[in-house]
This record gives sequence, structure tokens and C-alpha cells, in this order.
Amino acid sequence: MNMNNMKPIRGVAVIGTGLTKFGEHWNMGLKELAVEAGIKAVEDAGITGQELQLLVGGNMSGGLFAGQEHGAGLLADYLGLNPIPAIRTEGACSSGSLAVRVGYLAVASGMYDFVAVGGVEKMTDVYGPQATTALSGAMDYETEAYFGVTFPGIYALIAKRHMHDFGTTRRQLSMVAVKNHSNAQHNPYAQFRNKITVDDVEKSALVADPLRLLDCSPLTDGAATVILAPADIARKYTDTPIYIKASAQASDTLSLFSRRSITTLDATVHAVRDAYRQARITPKNVDFAEVHDCFTIAEICAYEDLGFAQKGKGGKMIENGEVELGGRIPVNTSGGLKAKGHPVGATGVAQIAELVAQLRGEAGKRQVKNAHTGMAHNVGGSGATVSVHILSNKK
Amino acid sequence: MNMNNMKPIRGVAVIGTGLTKFGEHWNMGLKELAVEAGIKAVEDAGITGQELQLLVGGNMSGGLFAGQEHGAGLLADYLGLNPIPAIRTEGACSSGSLAVRVGYLAVASGMYDFVAVGGVEKMTDVYGPQATTALSGAMDYETEAYFGVTFPGIYALIAKRHMHDFGTTRRQLSMVAVKNHSNAQHNPYAQFRNKITVDDVEKSALVADPLRLLDCSPLTDGAATVILAPADIARKYTDTPIYIKASAQASDTLSLFSRRSITTLDATVHAVRDAYRQARITPKNVDFAEVHDCFTIAEICAYEDLGFAQKGKGGKMIENGEVELGGRIPVNTSGGLKAKGHPVGATGVAQIAELVAQLRGEAGKRQVKNAHTGMAHNVGGSGATVSVHILSNKK
Repeated sequence: MNMNNMKPIRGVAVIGTGLTKFGEHWNMGLKELAVEAGIKAVEDAGITGQELQLLVGGNMSGGLFAGQEHGAGLLADYLGLNPIPAIRTEGACSSGSLAVRVGYLAVASGMYDFVAVGGVEKMTDVYGPQATTALSGAMDYETEAYFGVTFPGIYALIAKRHMHDFGTTRRQLSMVAVKNHSNAQHNPYAQFRNKITVDDVEKSALVADPLRLLDCSPLTDGAATVILAPADIARKYTDTPIYIKASAQASDTLSLFSRRSITTLDATVHAVRDAYRQARITPKNVDFAEVHDCFTIAEICAYEDLGFAQKGKGGKMIENGEVELGGRIPVNTSGGLKAKGHPVGATGVAQIAELVAQLRGEAGKRQVKNAHTGMAHNVGGSGATVSVHILSNKK
Repeated sequence: MNMNNMKPIRGVAVIGTGLTKFGEHWNMGLKELAVEAGIKAVEDAGITGQELQLLVGGNMSGGLFAGQEHGAGLLADYLGLNPIPAIRTEGACSSGSLAVRVGYLAVASGMYDFVAVGGVEKMTDVYGPQATTALSGAMDYETEAYFGVTFPGIYALIAKRHMHDFGTTRRQLSMVAVKNHSNAQHNPYAQFRNKITVDDVEKSALVADPLRLLDCSPLTDGAATVILAPADIARKYTDTPIYIKASAQASDTLSLFSRRSITTLDATVHAVRDAYRQARITPKNVDFAEVHDCFTIAEICAYEDLGFAQKGKGGKMIENGEVELGGRIPVNTSGGLKAKGHPVGATGVAQIAELVAQLRGEAGKRQVKNAHTGMAHNVGGSGATVSVHILSNKK
């Protein structure tokens, strides 16, 4: 790949965020969720809807979940933003971070100043096939989904192999879930705010050996929005602009069997390499991270693929307490996908909102001390699409 | 809306295009179609796949049509382009032009130099509900699709009202279909290359009064790709770079009943106003156009909303021969959606490919003489999303 310098011409900042509570919203649809998050973000940014020039909306599968494609247009409509342009992005569970990337490019291009980036998914009250079938749309249909494999099955294969190759233990997997539930206690937007124990995880129902129910992120309804603006004028709108220092992305095969290794997400490795280069930092400069823990094993792989731990040593990181709140590099202070919830199209945007809360010093009891540089890592499918963003409260 | 100058910092050109034949491809899926168009475009651009830095793919409803979301990642995979980033865009039948817009922003931002923009739809051999139901995902599900209205029904309402308010005739509708089939005879990629008569249209089966079968664009399998590059280096790759002078987009309500008027697509009016401003031209400077004729009435409305005719005078334009090949402003030289075919996610990209063919002087028997400025108009749903691009062979 013949990369240019990968630096945009114009810097971009986040000036506002908004989230719905994540969970089961039996009396709210796609529209109501997205509108709530959108209005909160506009208010937080201290702008008016009339100042917005572009809406980018991440949504994985409105078609299969809700019979509704054309989701970004729908949001512009119900947010009262017509006639501003609206673009939906989709990259399975990374749809939200792709929306962030498109919003970033739009501001960086000089063509738009104020861009609302939203993500939403309505996963309960499903329109078409069962949710697991809809989610299988993130796989290579012809070589994976068609044969009946599900995502818990795919991540179970990854977990088995990681345990075999590197001695990763059942207890280490459990500790990821325990940590994320512990963090979610302090996040008012999280779906599950209950403390759990290693024993709870290990006694929960077996889903796909070795993964148990409490290894898996839940089905979630929810929405998140962030407002982007040019870095050089962001301070007019907020005392705490948060700067996007890197927006990187990479691809890998959709099908697991086509990969060099199933325990390394090459797309994460490529995306984070580009992100470090754009931000001109190394893993040591990352103060905290939101990573894509759709299953507990995914978080352990992420420690390694993001450069926080050597390959195979991810299990040790959770065991040593390095990724806990107060540890060397707290991971998933929001509760992560596991406990905050995983409305797939919203997740990538919600990760950015958590980074902003931390970098503003507004994260309350889950605040990371001296947080200056945060990373968000969002994965589509089993790693065919990966986005990495690095944000900082220093320009 | 508080627009900035809407000019990107860096100019963008098209340096290559590729199309599959449009039609029924019973032995090709999403992947095979997209790969064929992608490889043709890369070859046409005279670059190698390794030089590409980003893939943007428009696809409306891979989920409902083929059980396949995550389409852009899938294409990067099957095109052998990993690890370059891949982003899917969706805006119903305007998904393709939204991909063009995202690719444009990516190059304009300075972050990427060579971007492949693809569009694909596989509409035969449908996975989930019937195609008409899948397409209904482009409507507001809760206020339209749920109650059973279909797109032929919606455009029939528009046609009835246009006839009532402006005296538009059945014959004028028919003449749109006749012209587009006539043009398609000279387009080797078109689905229907047969000449038809006004009589054929008016004797075809009634679908939704007053629209008959030959007023309607077909279900189509197909893919299109264009390769974008910075305008200032485009000449290194081709003797005939085609410059994107405007990339504009606007939104309107998804539901028809919420609109000020059902015979004017306000999103077209807003988008084309911005496009003319970006390109610094007026309707008189447009030499030819590809417009979104999903139904014959839609083309007549487009003449008016794009500023080629006064409101209510669209019917006269087709009757006077102004929009025919050789007329004042030829429209849908490719055959349009009606006769070239309408693989919804590919259409917006294929329109750009037709503009490029004309502006390069490579359109053969359908060549517009002295073509310097062309317009592409792509509509999502019944007009909730509209994109307008203006291209020129002059820098």
C-alpha cells in the first residue's frame, strides 16, 4: 500500500457528545433513540441544529433488524435537520467508528465545519430473522453464515486456539467480564451495572465452548452522537475541545479460515500502526483505551494486537491488574461492550463519547487520573474491519 | 443552514471507470459483480491495486437481498486489497452517489490520494423478503412501508398529482421510456437494448395507475466502480482526467405525506442549488445529464427540479425533443435507470461512469457533441436523499 503522509489538511475536534441509556428500550424505535442522543449532543456542544451541515449515521442492520434502510435520511428527518445531507455508514459492528471517520474526513476536507456523527441500533423487537441471524450478515455469507456458524462460535474458536497456543486460562477470560461489569457500575448509561464474580462467569450457561453467557456482550438498543468541528475554532464552542489525533482503519478477510492466524486480528495491527504514526505516539503514550470486547477473548487479543502486551501475554495483563481502573492502562472504563452494552451501530460512536468524558475529566467515579491520550478500537465482524481513533485533550 | 464556502481544500478527479453488464446475473453474486467492475476500473486508471488507499462501497440492502452486510469489507477481501480500509455507504437508491461523495471527501481531505468507489446490488435470487419488500426499507417503515405502500404506488401518486396540477400527459410519460430505451440501444452495458414505442408503453401491464410496466425501472444485478485521485496529479495517470466540480447532497422527509408538495423533490432543489454554487455555473451550462428515472414521472420532475425546465413544464421538454440525443440537453444517454437498469447501490456510481464516458468522448453512437459539463442526479427513496455531482473535462 502506497500511503501518502495520511495527515489531513485540517485538524478536527469533538465539541459535544450525547448518549441514550443502553439497554432494552421496548417503547423506543430507531428514530426515538437516535433523536435523543442527537439532541443531547447538540445541547452539549452549545450549538443549534441549524449550524449543523452534515449528518453521518452508523447503523449495521436496520434492514434486517427493523425493516428500515435509509437510516441517516430518517434521522435528518426526525431531528428536524432537513435539508442537510445525511450519509449512513456500515461496516458491521464497526459501523459507528466508520461514521466517525467519514465525519472526520468531511471536516478535514474543508467542505464542512459542523458535522453530527451518530450511531444507532435497535436490536430487541426484531423485524426479520432472529438477531443472531441478522448479525451473521457481518460474516462472509457464502463461506460462513450459510453453514450455520454464529459469532459466539467464531470467537469460541479464537479462544480455544489462544488458550492452546499461549496458555490463556478460563480464569483470565472471566476476569475481563468481572472488570468490565465493575467499571459499568459507575457508568449511568450502561446496560448492566451489577458486579459479578469469576465464579458467576464460570457458572453461567455455556454458549459455545469455552465461552459462557457472561463472556458475551448482550443485545442492546441504544444510540450515541458526537459533534465534530474544525480544531482551530473548537474553543469558541467549548472550554474542553477534544482533538482527534488519529483516525485509522484496516481490513482483513471476512472469513476466519482465510487468515494467517486466528488469534491475531491483522486489521487491528495495521490500523493501530497507522494510528500511532498519525498521532506520532507509541503504545506507552496511551493513558487508557476503549477496546472491542464483544467477547472476553476479544479484549485479550486486543491488548496484544494494539501493542499494550506482547503476543500471548494478554491474559497476564488482566491477571496483573494493569488494565483495571487505577492500573497502568485502564481498558473499557465505560464497562465495554460486555457491560455497557453493544448496540452494534452505536458502539464505535459511544467509545468516542467515553474517551471525551475521560479526557474532559467528567467521568466521575470511573475517571482515569491524568488522562491525556485515549484510544478507541472498534471491530466489525470477527476482524474484517477495524478502526482505531486516538483522541487527546492537548492540541 | 450555516454553510461555509463548501469548497474542499483539494480538487478531485476521476481517472478510471469500470462497469459490469447490467441485467440478470444468475451465476454471479455480490462479490463477483463488484470484483469485475473493480478490476476493470483499476485497469482503466492505469494504476495497480497496490496504489489504492481506500475503498468506499455503495450498497443499499445486501442484508435483505443477500443476507450480507459488511459489503465493503467483503469487497476489499475479494479484490485482494486487504489491509486497505473499506467503508460501505447507504442511502437507499442513492447509496452509490453517497459512496462517490465519501470518496471525494477522502481525497479532498488530503488524507488519501487514490480511492476506489464502487457500487453494487444483487437483486435477483433474493435471500429474504421479496425484492419489493426489501426496497420498501427506503421508505419510513413505520408510516409508509408498514401500511403496504410500494414504490410504484408512491410514484403513481406523484404522477397523478403532476398530471392534475400541470396537465402532464400519459403520452409524455411514455416518451421518457421510449427515449431511454432508444439511448440504451447504443450502450453495451444496458439491461434493455430494445427499442419501444409509445404504444408499447401504453399497452404494457398496469402496475399502479397511471404507471405501467414500461414506466418502471427494472430489478437489476450490476456493479460500477470509479477511481478518484487528486486533481493536481491526475494527468500523470490519464490523458483525459475528468474533474469533479461539485458534490452536493440534501435531505427531505422520508414520508411523502410530510412534504410541502409531492411533485417537487425539495432535496433535489437544495442539492442542485449547492452544486451550481460549487461549480459556479447555471443550468444553461449543463451540456447533458444522467437523472434518476426510477419511474418515468421521476425524470419529468427532475427536469423541473434541476432547473432545466420551469415547474410544470417538464412534460413539454420531452415532447419538444429537448432532452433527446442531439437535443438542447440530452438526458440519460446511458438509457437511464429505465433501460440501462437499476441495481440500486450501483446506480449512482454508474451515472458517474456515463458522465466520464461522455466527457472523454468515448460514448460511441450515444456521444453528446461538445460535451464539457455533465450532471448526475441520484435519488434515494422517493426523494429523502438526493445527490448531485457536476463533472467537467476542463480543470
